[in-house]
Amino acid sequence: MPESLSPSQRHAAPSFMEQAQQLADSFKATAAERDARGGTPLAERNQLRASGLLALSIPRQYGGLGADWADTLAVVRRLAQADSSLAHVFGFQHLMLATVQLFGQPQQWQPWLEQTARHQWFWGNALNPLDRRTLSRRVAGGREFSGHKSFCSGAADAQMLIASALDESADGRLLIAAIPADRSGITVHGDWDNIGQRQTDSGSVSFERVRVEEQELLLEPGPLSTPYSCLRPLLAQLIFTNLFVGVAEGAFEDARHYTRHHARPWFRAGVASASADPYVLHHYGEFWAALEGARLLTDRANQQFDHAWQQGARLNAAERGALAVAITTAKVAASRTGLDLSSRLFEVTGARATHGPLRLDRYWRNLRTQTLHDPLDYKLNELGDWALNGQSPTPTFYS
Amino acid sequence: MPESLSPSQRHAAPSFMEQAQQLADSFKATAAERDARGGTPLAERNQLRASGLLALSIPRQYGGLGADWADTLAVVRRLAQADSSLAHVFGFQHLMLATVQLFGQPQQWQPWLEQTARHQWFWGNALNPLDRRTLSRRVAGGREFSGHKSFCSGAADAQMLIASALDESADGRLLIAAIPADRSGITVHGDWDNIGQRQTDSGSVSFERVRVEEQELLLEPGPLSTPYSCLRPLLAQLIFTNLFVGVAEGAFEDARHYTRHHARPWFRAGVASASADPYVLHHYGEFWAALEGARLLTDRANQQFDHAWQQGARLNAAERGALAVAITTAKVAASRTGLDLSSRLFEVTGARATHGPLRLDRYWRNLRTQTLHDPLDYKLNELGDWALNGQSPTPTFYS
Amino acid sequence: MPESLSPSQRHAAPSFMEQAQQLADSFKATAAERDARGGTPLAERNQLRASGLLALSIPRQYGGLGADWADTLAVVRRLAQADSSLAHVFGFQHLMLATVQLFGQPQQWQPWLEQTARHQWFWGNALNPLDRRTLSRRVAGGREFSGHKSFCSGAADAQMLIASALDESADGRLLIAAIPADRSGITVHGDWDNIGQRQTDSGSVSFERVRVEEQELLLEPGPLSTPYSCLRPLLAQLIFTNLFVGVAEGAFEDARHYTRHHARPWFRAGVASASADPYVLHHYGEFWAALEGARLLTDRANQQFDHAWQQGARLNAAERGALAVAITTAKVAASRTGLDLSSRLFEVTGARATHGPLRLDRYWRNLRTQTLHDPLDYKLNELGDWALNGQSPTPTFYS
Amino acid sequence: MPESLSPSQRHAAPSFMEQAQQLADSFKATAAERDARGGTPLAERNQLRASGLLALSIPRQYGGLGADWADTLAVVRRLAQADSSLAHVFGFQHLMLATVQLFGQPQQWQPWLEQTARHQWFWGNALNPLDRRTLSRRVAGGREFSGHKSFCSGAADAQMLIASALDESADGRLLIAAIPADRSGITVHGDWDNIGQRQTDSGSVSFERVRVEEQELLLEPGPLSTPYSCLRPLLAQLIFTNLFVGVAEGAFEDARHYTRHHARPWFRAGVASASADPYVLHHYGEFWAALEGARLLTDRANQQFDHAWQQGARLNAAERGALAVAITTAKVAASRTGLDLSSRLFEVTGARATHGPLRLDRYWRNLRTQTLHDPLDYKLNELGDWALNGQSPTPTFYS
Repeated sequence: MPESLSPSQRHAAPSFMEQAQQLADSFKATAAERDARGGTPLAERNQLRASGLLALSIPRQYGGLGADWADTLAVVRRLAQADSSLAHVFGFQHLMLATVQLFGQPQQWQPWLEQTARHQWFWGNALNPLDRRTLSRRVAGGREFSGHKSFCSGAADAQMLIASALDESADGRLLIAAIPADRSGITVHGDWDNIGQRQTDSGSVSFERVRVEEQELLLEPGPLSTPYSCLRPLLAQLIFTNLFVGVAEGAFEDARHYTRHHARPWFRAGVASASADPYVLHHYGEFWAALEGARLLTDRANQQFDHAWQQGARLNAAERGALAVAITTAKVAASRTGLDLSSRLFEVTGARATHGPLRLDRYWRNLRTQTLHDPLDYKLNELGDWALNGQSPTPTFYS
Repeated sequence: MPESLSPSQRHAAPSFMEQAQQLADSFKATAAERDARGGTPLAERNQLRASGLLALSIPRQYGGLGADWADTLAVVRRLAQADSSLAHVFGFQHLMLATVQLFGQPQQWQPWLEQTARHQWFWGNALNPLDRRTLSRRVAGGREFSGHKSFCSGAADAQMLIASALDESADGRLLIAAIPADRSGITVHGDWDNIGQRQTDSGSVSFERVRVEEQELLLEPGPLSTPYSCLRPLLAQLIFTNLFVGVAEGAFEDARHYTRHHARPWFRAGVASASADPYVLHHYGEFWAALEGARLLTDRANQQFDHAWQQGARLNAAERGALAVAITTAKVAASRTGLDLSSRLFEVTGARATHGPLRLDRYWRNLRTQTLHDPLDYKLNELGDWALNGQSPTPTFYS
Repeated sequence: MPESLSPSQRHAAPSFMEQAQQLADSFKATAAERDARGGTPLAERNQLRASGLLALSIPRQYGGLGADWADTLAVVRRLAQADSSLAHVFGFQHLMLATVQLFGQPQQWQPWLEQTARHQWFWGNALNPLDRRTLSRRVAGGREFSGHKSFCSGAADAQMLIASALDESADGRLLIAAIPADRSGITVHGDWDNIGQRQTDSGSVSFERVRVEEQELLLEPGPLSTPYSCLRPLLAQLIFTNLFVGVAEGAFEDARHYTRHHARPWFRAGVASASADPYVLHHYGEFWAALEGARLLTDRANQQFDHAWQQGARLNAAERGALAVAITTAKVAASRTGLDLSSRLFEVTGARATHGPLRLDRYWRNLRTQTLHDPLDYKLNELGDWALNGQSPTPTFYS
Repeated sequence: MPESLSPSQRHAAPSFMEQAQQLADSFKATAAERDARGGTPLAERNQLRASGLLALSIPRQYGGLGADWADTLAVVRRLAQADSSLAHVFGFQHLMLATVQLFGQPQQWQPWLEQTARHQWFWGNALNPLDRRTLSRRVAGGREFSGHKSFCSGAADAQMLIASALDESADGRLLIAAIPADRSGITVHGDWDNIGQRQTDSGSVSFERVRVEEQELLLEPGPLSTPYSCLRPLLAQLIFTNLFVGVAEGAFEDARHYTRHHARPWFRAGVASASADPYVLHHYGEFWAALEGARLLTDRANQQFDHAWQQGARLNAAERGALAVAITTAKVAASRTGLDLSSRLFEVTGARATHGPLRLDRYWRNLRTQTLHDPLDYKLNELGDWALNGQSPTPTFYS
């Protein structure tokens, strides 16, 4: 049976990869049904809490499992094979933990990491720089955030939120804070109902004069202030990339199982089983070649990310730029491979694979939704500027 | 504003095209909601009945509207822009009416056509030659059909059914009959729940010793017996082709409306509106070029079909072969164009267009489902045999 | 044997289509050898002269054959199947004759048309609006053109030239003149040596104080001055489109002949001949579907062009815009179809088809060269602006 | 400036990579001119001899440079960036040296390797298992090979040949021998004149009663007899793969240089240089993403090949199968990437880049020719059988 040769997967320590595997198996059993249902997957979120994996990327000295990013991302990928909504919130958990480390001061984030490891806190996202509707104003001894924010993945059932607002005084500068999710004035609307990624709770959050303490603001070094802090959007992009690869792998495995066990040979093919049809084999050959390319590009990007992370404040702009290119390259390959495979899988399974309860369309719907996070055309534009002009992507929250 | 230049649409008499337009507008208003719901669209089926369009292809001498096939297919396409499930059952209505004319004797089908026009009967399909589970045995003065059949589009809420069975005596020959849907022993299971074409009622039907009279059997000339009777599968393929074009056009129009009225320009694009983004324009350029190609190929095939139909028994195998090639060519173009457009439309509308209630994914789901009726790869194989070896497609129920 | 169903080809009067056919057969016999050689195909140009086809589009009242544009373009396509260099200069002959009719006054162009018909003059092109190196200055009783110009197709061995220059006084306005090719000061450099279209003589021409009489200038209505005069660039684009279709058809026919008569089945295919290989058939199926789409789009554009031409000065901007869209759509399809087919043909013929003397690569080289006349990406951009925003292409010398 | 991150290139010892670089620079200077000329590049072959690189893969104990395969293949790739004909004969040199090691006994190949290192012998290929025209018959004390053979790359100007014949007695078994190229009865026809790979001397060779000694026959273990000996066709495939990547890289670099230094912005683009055109950037982005994928897949395959080679006789069929899949995957990616890039490069350079003396079409012609060695469709078929059915490719001379 063909196996991915992902280095990430090879050197992932068995204990947490085994746990990820068990979670994935469990999530897979109900993924179709939960895709239909949408909403917040509380039972599965609690399984994630119970597994201890919410502390996977937290260094051991703060009570975490101390996994590197390649391993953390391998878990994202593994979960995404089974359920890309849970993979998403799991990935974002670690993105939020990285955010406080990249944008804030150790005396801020050390306690947060310790508490997260101790209480298996879930972190949600309310940082959306393109949504300029939430403003911050100074009040005695702190700030107040007020406004609305869309696409707040994982905000429901979270203990902590990363929230952003524009400073309404002075310069409209972006302020980012880590705050308890139950703080007065925060309303998580539970209004996410999209065609894919249906259990990511990526709906809207309102802030009504939400108090934010000075020490909750990530001001130093602050967002996108140094090459190192600029790793944050790259980690976000890399989580998506691993998620896309995982979805493509999940779609591939389901297609493969269906073709081998349920598909019928076309009467004109002159073969005894669909698995021997020359056109079916050709599609699978193309699936494989594309998947392998996406996997290698993603594995390389994962490893380069760890290397950059380890550089810390020493990371320079050129190194960050090269990493951005590696991640963007992987993301382009993973996006296109996944979209093609998750649509074309029906051509190797046949009409009966459109049976509703199988919900085999969810791979395409999940990818179709998540690949729109930021436009692929501008990713190619950035790669082109690198390839042609030697220009690294300008750091933004999307590059 | 760009307009299709479909000759079919141009010369369609205003009265029924206007009616089709009104139905389409009405269906469109609820299409997303009904896609979510699935099941039998009784209200809409009754609107079709009330419109008189169930008799559209029936010659005037039998009380019908006397439309030619190009016009009938233009109505299929128009409906498919709004709702491809209703377009499907509408197309199959006329396929069933063609079936009795192609496979049976005038003394059989004339009364059926008259009754259909008079009572606005709906015809459903229970003819599925690849599903060999329904058998026919001789009983005194007729036959009994017993067994199961899948993919019986439009069988629910129909007054008449075209049903097939294999003759269990002798030779296992395919028998096809036109029978009232309420005949004793017929159970329409209402079990269609697939990812697309959700209101086509394409579920299963059981036959438990269903009595079939000799004069209900379409024996003379019988199925696929002459070049003329072999027009039946070509009409089925052509209905799908027009349906695919219609879905692609519907997807295009929804995308266009969204891009112009709701999409936001990407912050890196440096343009004031998404409609001016160079990559968005490029996608639309590709959509247009592909759509126009598919439209012209389909219009040509529609016209050729009418010409072949008018030949009647004089139609020879070479003419039928050339028509088969024209239809297959159009179907390949329409399938690929539609699948690409209905997936890529999200890249010109952006992440917010994945909002669930819009159900903009239904265009892809509908096409993904219906394009699996028979494998595209074997359509290309047939075209290749023609292009390379000058070999026309061998007539089957799929070619 | 499959046949294109091109209406243009059907209604082309036999006499000149037969002549075109004979010329094509003759050109084909030496096309590979002449592709190797490059330079000016004098013998073939004289065959064109002798055929009378240089007067094909000239109205009968001026001594021409009076063909409409659909027929003239059908001849371009037919010649391009055999030799796209000769098809190019033949097409440009008629483009130049159209240019004087569109940009000048009847009293100017009537004698030119008559002389052309009488003496079988060849017209060459020295109009290249993007090459701004040729200037015009006023001298007593006329002008002098001086400078250099590249991409002057068909300038060698021509009797007349259409030349352009920028008016160095005043406004730098574009001046276009029809002048005898042997006028003093004109040097045709014969320096065209490109990878494709090798016998089009598309090299450079120098003008050294070339005298241009006032009555040789096409000032009224002048270039791109009215919707009708704006047909000139559309005819150029349409000539290319027909040429691309012809090249694709020629490549298809050569591939087909090779697969059927020379290709060997791959030992793993388990078939007796390459013509039965499932993958070979699939490629041919794709070739056919693409070719047919390009053919129909081009036929439609040809017919629309004739219709617009017949409108004359009554043609309005919207009609011209719709025609531009039809032509651009056809050009996109023809370019892509041709490039794909002319490269992929080797996958259905095999390694031995790379044999040098066959020069089967010339189809790709010819298309690769000619499709760069103006960028395909901007053609798609224009189509997108039409499809999305309802905006017709702004008339320029390239749209 | 973007750099490939090829591990192979990173760990290649500087001395021979520097030499490869110098050779590549030298070859590049005349590559276009020699592409026009065809024939045997004697001066460049002598440069290869003088460089010592003909002994690159020969272990140090036999006087060679002792490079591993990853490094040897990195040199193939480097040379192919400049001149894929010389890269081909260089790669085949080492394929022939591998052949004697894989198919013969140490007492046979040790002297051949030593002599090759000492005298910088060039080895040519006259092994073509699909060409069954050369037969072997027993004569006193040995064999005689008689017949004809096509596609004998590098046979001209070689000192040694690997030749094959079918044993006309008994069983028609394939016999492979290593023989001096100047042996009586051998005629190298110098008749290679194909559209690409024009200086590979891949023409025909005749054998007229050519004496072959028993100890020149590679009988033990013999061709394709063990998993280890089955590495031979994999090395051939891997040489092609590296060659394709190299050609794609060379095409990319030439395109990049042209776009930056010579291309003109399209007048409608509204940008100051072609390097800022959004569509140009998009193409380069796609080139980069595809190239990087092909590079990583190829690097991985190179490393896996070294690992398998080091296993020697211990290599089992499953390991050989996994390697075959890795190589085939890389070959598919490299073939498609290269063909696309070498054709599309003209869309980012413009019409003037078709200037003949540049011969920028040679990248496409070289790839188009060499990628036909064995059909890509059957490579995908094999990958599909692996991906779907877990079936490794059956070892043949092409898999």
